[in-house]
Amino acid sequence: MSNKKVAVLLSGCGVFDGAEINEVVLTLLALENNGFSHQCFAPDIQQHHVIDHKKGDIPPEIRNVFTESARIVRGNIKPVTECNSEQFAAVIVPGGFGVAKNLSNFATGESEFRVEKNTLSALKQFAAENKPAGYMCIAPILIPSVYGPDVKITIGNDGEVIEFIKKAGCQHQIARYNEIVVDETRNVVTTPAYMLAQSIKEAKEGIDKLVEKVVSLL
Amino acid sequence: MSNKKVAVLLSGCGVFDGAEINEVVLTLLALENNGFSHQCFAPDIQQHHVIDHKKGDIPPEIRNVFTESARIVRGNIKPVTECNSEQFAAVIVPGGFGVAKNLSNFATGESEFRVEKNTLSALKQFAAENKPAGYMCIAPILIPSVYGPDVKITIGNDGEVIEFIKKAGCQHQIARYNEIVVDETRNVVTTPAYMLAQSIKEAKEGIDKLVEKVVSLL
Repeated sequence: MSNKKVAVLLSGCGVFDGAEINEVVLTLLALENNGFSHQCFAPDIQQHHVIDHKKGDIPPEIRNVFTESARIVRGNIKPVTECNSEQFAAVIVPGGFGVAKNLSNFATGESEFRVEKNTLSALKQFAAENKPAGYMCIAPILIPSVYGPDVKITIGNDGEVIEFIKKAGCQHQIARYNEIVVDETRNVVTTPAYMLAQSIKEAKEGIDKLVEKVVSLL
Repeated sequence: MSNKKVAVLLSGCGVFDGAEINEVVLTLLALENNGFSHQCFAPDIQQHHVIDHKKGDIPPEIRNVFTESARIVRGNIKPVTECNSEQFAAVIVPGGFGVAKNLSNFATGESEFRVEKNTLSALKQFAAENKPAGYMCIAPILIPSVYGPDVKITIGNDGEVIEFIKKAGCQHQIARYNEIVVDETRNVVTTPAYMLAQSIKEAKEGIDKLVEKVVSLL
């Protein structure tokens, strides 16, 4: 395997309006532990909103998904428009509400589901080349738009999200925080992560399995 | 050991104007792996400034250290004024410029060094009871103010910071990213973390050693 670099797509900084921070750090750590380097990307768009993570309030602030994502990775991030699948062995999408509010409109109250166009374009490149892809937590909601129907995935056991996935024509398999689901045809690996994990240690179990499986599919 | 809970002090969210995110996540993970729970605290004060982590710019935004710190820990944070050392076995302070800009004025250009008063008060409680304390990355700059002179510590090998520590009367010992320095008299453990680490994996080596040593001192 000559190309040992994996693209990781971020959606902000903080579980309630951006990427789930623990999931990002644990993903990058697992890649390093498997001998892979990583490059993070995020769309250069305004966040859906800003949430005070302590109070739950929505202050009248405007933040940018790309700029905030840069916080998690010490500034080492590129716009998702520069994500060229030819340069990477695989792609991984950590979760957090940023996936449901910034990378898509799943949790914004709009009626017609859509994925942010440049994010969708980047993910579709990996799908077209059948390169391994890992989606964790709420991120599997993007999969039907990227791959079409019939993909076997998990988002844990949340009824509302399972219904969405089934309506989109994909197969849902209930899984625990420390389990992965693999679609062998499309090389897609999913794990519930913080949809079910109660601690960083628990989240790490599923994420480690996801990353190990993703790189084993290369 | 009946009290298996450790207090962790945060200074914002993002290495350049707040807490170093990887260091926080790795500290909490190491505590969990050692069978300890954790409670994070931060001072409820305005950040010194906000830095765009990609561009390095300083936008005209106002953010709060407590509110931003909450992002890393999914909202599970308390004001540092509520940090009572009697409820905890030990305390750990991760690094990031937040320690040098929010928890103290080390990097703000002011001439007289001072530590944020409520942070200092909390840390002094642990010192007075001789409870184990871990300081990583740039956080050891707080130690002379908390403990007084003669403490043996490391901040890696940065000449300017070493000079500050020596002027404050403490002893500095050069260390690598995967090494710790222990002051056995005061139960203070330090490690360079991202003062020297080049990856999350490297940072984890030193932080794991720091956490293991801190809990072994109980």
